[in-house]
Amino acid sequence: MADASQPVELLVCTTCRAGQPTNVEGPRPGTQLFDALTAADLPENVTLKGVECFSNCDQGCSVTLRGGNERWTYVYGRFTGAEDAELVADGVTKYAATVDGLVPWRERSIHFRKNCIARIPPQETPE
Amino acid sequence: MADASQPVELLVCTTCRAGQPTNVEGPRPGTQLFDALTAADLPENVTLKGVECFSNCDQGCSVTLRGGNERWTYVYGRFTGAEDAELVADGVTKYAATVDGLVPWRERSIHFRKNCIARIPPQETPE
Repeated sequence: MADASQPVELLVCTTCRAGQPTNVEGPRPGTQLFDALTAADLPENVTLKGVECFSNCDQGCSVTLRGGNERWTYVYGRFTGAEDAELVADGVTKYAATVDGLVPWRERSIHFRKNCIARIPPQETPE
Repeated sequence: MADASQPVELLVCTTCRAGQPTNVEGPRPGTQLFDALTAADLPENVTLKGVECFSNCDQGCSVTLRGGNERWTYVYGRFTGAEDAELVADGVTKYAATVDGLVPWRERSIHFRKNCIARIPPQETPE
């Protein structure tokens, strides 16, 4: 049964460098974004998870939104780090409120409109 | 139980233009790739499906490989059309033979090595 409260996963690549050179020490921008999101105000049905590498390194920091049998999965990129935590939280809040993962275009932030890396249709489940 | 014979979906974007201008008539490169794949030699556990738009238009033609609770999902791009059907068939054949979707680097074609758009970890299922 379609239900907007179905669980959503917010996956954050913790290894993203966001264009940083490889010799920079300390937590990577992806880890900083992840850490900032642990303190962000996320809807109850959203679970935050760190992932090592979405193979989208040229366009990271990257996040993936998915959840439920009815929702499209979205990969978004070109975030810069901790300072984008609110932007990501806003995007996943809108996504988590949908049944199918399709947030109306006019409701998406400019960043989400312009930086969708890919989207994947919901997996059909046997009846 | 992990099993390399778990069903795999090969999703092909049928609306991809592969950089064509918008005024070109006739079937789009994505549709031509899809049509060519219907005649390709695919493993038994692979189902071919057309999808309208992966939102990866700047780097199309695009395909997505997914399937089973244990496999990573992969999006590959920058195919040119029907002439890449064999390349895609080779990639999905190797993918479908894995349990986790991770084809060893040295076994991947050069195109697959260089044109991974994104990968997404398997969805954890409740025990």
